[in-house]
Amino acid sequence: MEQRNTKPIRCIVKLGGAAITCKNELETIDEENLMTVSSQLRQSLMFGSASQKVSGMDWSKRLGFSEPPTVDSDFSDQPVVGSKSFVVVHGAGSFGHFQASKSGVHKGGLSQPLVKAGFVATRISVTSLNLEIVRALAREGIPSIGMSPFSCGWSTCKRNMDAADVSMVVNAIDAGFIPVLHGDAVLDSSQECTILSGDVIISHLAAKLKPEYVVFLTDVYGVYDRPPTEPDAVLLQEIAVREDGSWSVVKPTLQGTGKPEFTVASHDTTGGMVTKISEAAMIARLGIDVYIVKVGTEHSLRALDGSLRGEIPNDWRGTALRLVR
Amino acid sequence: MEQRNTKPIRCIVKLGGAAITCKNELETIDEENLMTVSSQLRQSLMFGSASQKVSGMDWSKRLGFSEPPTVDSDFSDQPVVGSKSFVVVHGAGSFGHFQASKSGVHKGGLSQPLVKAGFVATRISVTSLNLEIVRALAREGIPSIGMSPFSCGWSTCKRNMDAADVSMVVNAIDAGFIPVLHGDAVLDSSQECTILSGDVIISHLAAKLKPEYVVFLTDVYGVYDRPPTEPDAVLLQEIAVREDGSWSVVKPTLQGTGKPEFTVASHDTTGGMVTKISEAAMIARLGIDVYIVKVGTEHSLRALDGSLRGEIPNDWRGTALRLVR
Repeated sequence: MEQRNTKPIRCIVKLGGAAITCKNELETIDEENLMTVSSQLRQSLMFGSASQKVSGMDWSKRLGFSEPPTVDSDFSDQPVVGSKSFVVVHGAGSFGHFQASKSGVHKGGLSQPLVKAGFVATRISVTSLNLEIVRALAREGIPSIGMSPFSCGWSTCKRNMDAADVSMVVNAIDAGFIPVLHGDAVLDSSQECTILSGDVIISHLAAKLKPEYVVFLTDVYGVYDRPPTEPDAVLLQEIAVREDGSWSVVKPTLQGTGKPEFTVASHDTTGGMVTKISEAAMIARLGIDVYIVKVGTEHSLRALDGSLRGEIPNDWRGTALRLVR
Repeated sequence: MEQRNTKPIRCIVKLGGAAITCKNELETIDEENLMTVSSQLRQSLMFGSASQKVSGMDWSKRLGFSEPPTVDSDFSDQPVVGSKSFVVVHGAGSFGHFQASKSGVHKGGLSQPLVKAGFVATRISVTSLNLEIVRALAREGIPSIGMSPFSCGWSTCKRNMDAADVSMVVNAIDAGFIPVLHGDAVLDSSQECTILSGDVIISHLAAKLKPEYVVFLTDVYGVYDRPPTEPDAVLLQEIAVREDGSWSVVKPTLQGTGKPEFTVASHDTTGGMVTKISEAAMIARLGIDVYIVKVGTEHSLRALDGSLRGEIPNDWRGTALRLVR
C-alpha cells in the first residue's frame, strides 16, 4: 500500500444492542432510534452538515420498487467527513442472541454439529444487522463500510482478544470511510469458538487507535448506583479514574459531606454496575474520555459531537468517566 | 492460534454473477438456480448426504413470521463436510454493477465524492448478495461463512491483487467452514480504489490454496469457438494447457484431420473467448483442473462432485482445461 498519513480518530461509538434493536422482538431493528443515531452521527462527523442536502450512499432498490433510487451525481455540496474520523461498533441485541444461546457458541466446542450450526446461524443474524446499520448510515450520507471481525481474521484465546490486526480498519479510516464493526462469532484458540462482544472490540480498538473519546449509546441514561428501575436510583454523572484503573464518583457528591458517594478499586467487581464502570474505567485510564448516555437524546448528541470535552455541563444527563492524574 | 493441520482444498467454485442473478433485473437473485447450486454443492461436499435430513443453519426469522424457524437441536444424523473442503467465490451480476458503473469505482479516484459514494453503495449491494448466498447454502446444511475481501484487508495495486493474506480463509476452512467470498470494491495503492473481480480472487486463491479443481458455473454450457448465440458455434470440450500457459483445443478435433481446431499462445489475447480461456489456463498450468460449465445442470453436478477427475466422458457438456506435461 502507498504510505498514507494515519488519520487521527476522534471517537469510537458503541451502538448498544438494546439501543438499536427491539430487545424482545426477534431480529427487529428499532428504526426510530437507528434513524436518530444516524442523523446525530452525521451532525457530529461532518463539516458543512448544516446544509439540508443529503446525498445518500445506499443505491439499492427499495422494497416494492424495481429501480434503484435516483442517484444525484452532483456530490459537490456534500458535507465531508472532518479530518478526524469515527469508528462505529454495534452490539447484537435481538439479532444473534437467540442463535448463540440456542447453540452455546460462547461456550465453544465447534466440533459439535449444533455449535457449528449455531456459529453459522449467529453470523448470518449479526451480519444482517450490520448490513442494515451500514445502510442507515449511508442513507444519511455517511461513508460507512461494514467490517466483520471474523473476516478481519480476529480471534480470541480464552475468550480474550488474541489475534486482532487492526490495519484493515486503519486503512479504511485513512481512505475516508467510517468502519462499522460488530459483535461476532469468532474462532478461539483455547475453546475453538466463542462470541467476541462489541464491548471487547471497543476496548481493543480504543487501546490501538487512541480516540479522543468513546461514547456508549444505551437504552438508559447512564450508570446508576442501583438498578435504574428502583425509585431512589441515582445517576452517576461523573467518575474520576486514576491511572491504576481505580475510580470514584465525583458527581453527585454524598449529600452534605461534599465527598464522593463511594470508591471502588478496579478489581473489586461486585456486580453488574461495578463491572460496567470498571470496563469503562479501563478505557478512561488511557486518557480517553468515556460517555455512557441514552440513545437518541440531546444528551447523546452532545456526547457524540465533542461538546463535553471541556467541563461536563450540569444539565447533561449521562455518565462521564475521565482520567485524573 | 492453536496449531491445526491445514485441511486440503478439493475445489474452488465460482458462482458467476450471470448464473445466480437475473442479469437485467436490478438486485434480483435467480432463486431457482441458487437453490440448485446449493443442493449440488451439498451433494458434492458432504458425506452421508444421501440422507434426506437437512438441518438448516439459517435460523433467522422468515419473512412474515415473527418467530425463528424451529431449530432441530439433534444434529447427530447430519452429514458432515468431507475431509477436503470447498471455497465458494461469487460474482456480482445485477448486484453492484449499477452502483459501480454509475460512479466509476473501477477507475479509481476515491477523493471524488461520487466515487466514494459509489464505493459505499457498491459494497452495500454486493454484501447483501453475499448474505443471501450464505443463507441459501446454510439452509442446505452447508456451514457457510461470508467473508468480504475488503474486510479481509485485501487490496490491489494497478488493479492487480496486491496485499492478500489468505490466513483468515485458511483458518475458516480448518475450522470446518465453507468460506463464501465475492467480488468487492477494494482499496488500490496506485489509483486509490477499484473493483476486485471474483475471477481475480479465484486465480489468487487457486495459486495459494492449490485445490484439486476449480469449477466456473456460468449461464452458458462452456466456452465456444464463437459467440454461443451464433448457429454454428462449437463448444470446446477439452483444452490442453502446457506449463508455459499456452493451450490448444483437444476436443472437438478439426473434422477429418484429427488435428485440434486451433492453437493460441497464452499471451495472444485477441478477444473475449480467448481471454476467458487464457485466464482459466493460468490456473490449469498449476496442475489444477478447470471446468467451465452451465449452472444447475447434470453437467455442473458432475464437475462439482469430482467425477471428471479421470477421463472426461463424451456425454459431458462443458469446457475442461487440463495441464499436459
